[in-house]
Amino acid sequence: MLNYTATYTDLYQLSMAQVYFKQGRKNQTAVFDYFFRKNPFEGGYTVFSGLQDLLAALEDLKFTEEELEYLKTQDFDEDFLAYLKDFRFKGKIYSVKEGDVVFPTRPVLQVEAGIIEAQIIETLLLNILNFQSLIATKASRMRMVAGERSLLDFGLRRAQSTGGYYASRAAIVGGFNGTSNVMAGKDFDIPISGTMAHSFIQSYDNELTAFRDFAQGRPKDCVLLVDTYDTLKSGVPNAISVAKEMEEKREKLLAIRLDSGDLAYLARESRKLLDKAGLEYVKIAASNQLDEHVIKSLLEQGAPIDVFGVGTNLVIGKADAALDGVYKLSFFNENPRIKISESIIKITLPHKKQVYRVKDTNGHAIGADVVSLRDEEKPEHMFHPFEPFKSMEISEFKLEPLLKPVMENGKSLIQKRSLTEIAKFSKKRLAEMSSEYKRFNNPHIYKVGISKNLKEERDRLISAFKK
Amino acid sequence: MLNYTATYTDLYQLSMAQVYFKQGRKNQTAVFDYFFRKNPFEGGYTVFSGLQDLLAALEDLKFTEEELEYLKTQDFDEDFLAYLKDFRFKGKIYSVKEGDVVFPTRPVLQVEAGIIEAQIIETLLLNILNFQSLIATKASRMRMVAGERSLLDFGLRRAQSTGGYYASRAAIVGGFNGTSNVMAGKDFDIPISGTMAHSFIQSYDNELTAFRDFAQGRPKDCVLLVDTYDTLKSGVPNAISVAKEMEEKREKLLAIRLDSGDLAYLARESRKLLDKAGLEYVKIAASNQLDEHVIKSLLEQGAPIDVFGVGTNLVIGKADAALDGVYKLSFFNENPRIKISESIIKITLPHKKQVYRVKDTNGHAIGADVVSLRDEEKPEHMFHPFEPFKSMEISEFKLEPLLKPVMENGKSLIQKRSLTEIAKFSKKRLAEMSSEYKRFNNPHIYKVGISKNLKEERDRLISAFKK
Repeated sequence: MLNYTATYTDLYQLSMAQVYFKQGRKNQTAVFDYFFRKNPFEGGYTVFSGLQDLLAALEDLKFTEEELEYLKTQDFDEDFLAYLKDFRFKGKIYSVKEGDVVFPTRPVLQVEAGIIEAQIIETLLLNILNFQSLIATKASRMRMVAGERSLLDFGLRRAQSTGGYYASRAAIVGGFNGTSNVMAGKDFDIPISGTMAHSFIQSYDNELTAFRDFAQGRPKDCVLLVDTYDTLKSGVPNAISVAKEMEEKREKLLAIRLDSGDLAYLARESRKLLDKAGLEYVKIAASNQLDEHVIKSLLEQGAPIDVFGVGTNLVIGKADAALDGVYKLSFFNENPRIKISESIIKITLPHKKQVYRVKDTNGHAIGADVVSLRDEEKPEHMFHPFEPFKSMEISEFKLEPLLKPVMENGKSLIQKRSLTEIAKFSKKRLAEMSSEYKRFNNPHIYKVGISKNLKEERDRLISAFKK
Repeated sequence: MLNYTATYTDLYQLSMAQVYFKQGRKNQTAVFDYFFRKNPFEGGYTVFSGLQDLLAALEDLKFTEEELEYLKTQDFDEDFLAYLKDFRFKGKIYSVKEGDVVFPTRPVLQVEAGIIEAQIIETLLLNILNFQSLIATKASRMRMVAGERSLLDFGLRRAQSTGGYYASRAAIVGGFNGTSNVMAGKDFDIPISGTMAHSFIQSYDNELTAFRDFAQGRPKDCVLLVDTYDTLKSGVPNAISVAKEMEEKREKLLAIRLDSGDLAYLARESRKLLDKAGLEYVKIAASNQLDEHVIKSLLEQGAPIDVFGVGTNLVIGKADAALDGVYKLSFFNENPRIKISESIIKITLPHKKQVYRVKDTNGHAIGADVVSLRDEEKPEHMFHPFEPFKSMEISEFKLEPLLKPVMENGKSLIQKRSLTEIAKFSKKRLAEMSSEYKRFNNPHIYKVGISKNLKEERDRLISAFKK
């Protein structure tokens, strides 16, 4: 649906690029870390999503003729524009696997490329990864409370414009079963799903005829919306009549949908009416301002809901609506780089790095990731990044390296996985973590440590700067 | 950048469409109202945006071959798919002018079309108008407090994926001056703007050389970022040195940018240093988690900031992140329709309608819009929609009709306006409203009344339903 082109960036990337170009520094290489500082939703983890879309975008990224013409009007130099004409991203990327669980302050992905290439892709990279990771995380929280029940994305109408297209994708990574978004269904191979609107019923003089026509037109996936007039007195009884008529034709009503009122009460009462009519197989779907907290509450109340249709709160990632991912220089022109800040927690980690997940012998995550220099041996100790006297021996544990090469010379190195596979992997990774890291209220903080060598390098650079 | 095609919709629109088609009802016409129920940001108004994009999308909307092939795999009937092959939107649309100020519960736009067309476009319409109106409103709130100072959108990296492209457009409608988003700049003819990143300075061994190179590479729009190491001890003094060197070449440093720390304090101190050096012309730009409240506070503290760069909070429309716009059937097949709800404020207004802005003889909005039947005379009274004993005579006022035909037979009727023109119109419309409707805390509620005829029609339909 959408072609990213190279002007999908901030002007300052191009301004800086022109300066690098004019200063003859275009072949100097840079390493940038992508990481974020805070898990969304006051939660204990983030689900990393968007990598495959990013790699696909980078493989094709270039400036079109039209874009170059436009840039000519924006005070760029002819020789620099001639250089942009042949611009391609030819860098290398190391990344965590899409769908993995990731944590604040440690690299999720590293870009190694010529400084101009690395800058031009920054905005695109942040734009794709920040948003999809936000939504996959939101979706995973709903999956956690919904158990095996069906979760469907109904959010396109309230999405942030075309962001909804990618929200539908990321929702699947986080564990959703399907979407109402037809275009996303087609392009990302996601099961599409849907029911009927109130307007359909209003277009008839009575609800029963509307239901009957709908069942006739969509017999295989018929879901009847029962709250247009009166759920228990009109909607459910009419749905039962139609379900019985369908049985005569050897068809089966799939579900009814509740979209207003007290969903817990209405689901229970509807279930009774359906069961009494011998329609135990007819499912109950619910929608209307759902999120992980409402779903949890409904299920705690024993509401017999089989399918949850989630809209706005999913696709906009309510309440945060943004992941604060950043892209920071850690190595340049053969030298480690650090960004100093008055706040110690904002000081960046220099160097090319590796990140390990610390696991016990059963493969269970013990609740810590450790960041090391890329080329050092697996670390035997991890240090608290900011509290000098806190450290821990980790030699008895298994260390699983998380950053793997995913792109080289601008070409993807990874085999494209289906969203189902990515979601399955994400589910497995979440299962490896104890529940205290996943709970909604005051989750346990997953530790991020640094290796001795990385700590010494960082401290050396801070000291050098202070002088 | 993006082509909307007809699968940019929810599956249920197509399911319902197939049923209408099979029942021979495809030529029955429907009228849908677009309206929302709550102003965003606890504010007193909403700026309507996105209309031109919507009309452009509708003019070209169709199902591609690839989409039809996909739908074939989704249980749609051959004859219906053959019908979709020739699908075009051929309806009529009445709308408020883009950029106008609008209020909850009354129609902002009405669609009159064959029921299938009207349903298929619903998702697209809501997706475009909800989001752009949200962002234009957010932008207008910042414009209100920023006075004549410059407001720039820097948000693409934290935007909800490609939603950022449209956020940049809507920000201009709401009063922003420019964007860092190059693609949006090109496609929507928005001034583009930008500075430099911390990484640029970090790529050098010292700040002064970095500034010097940048000034040489981008002398015409040079903005130096001064907070990489120490704003007042290093950044501003180095910027002053470079500004002086530029003066020798008859160039002028445009601005410095503050991106961390106490912006009010740093702006004041930086101003002093710049002025002392005779650089009164060098502007101060500020960024870092800005929104309307922070900008207001900075200016109340007398911070001498000339340019505000706003990112995340603008482009995601923090804190709401969604406008709750809906699309409700009000007329079908020659009969008015109403959606009943147990909550009286959720009962919809039936019929084809007109909306008037009530103005005094000076053209100042008195703080009320009135909704009438489309074809009745200008109403002389307005009634509270839900409180039967509240009414007001309005015969002494001027009534300005707000809903005008903007599309007929699927073709736009309006002359395309530039974003500058739309923004200018929006500014004028906001100026026609008293400030109590625009303040941030507990704004005065702008009244929405209904005409006597509309009230009687609505009440008649409610009574008929109760029987």
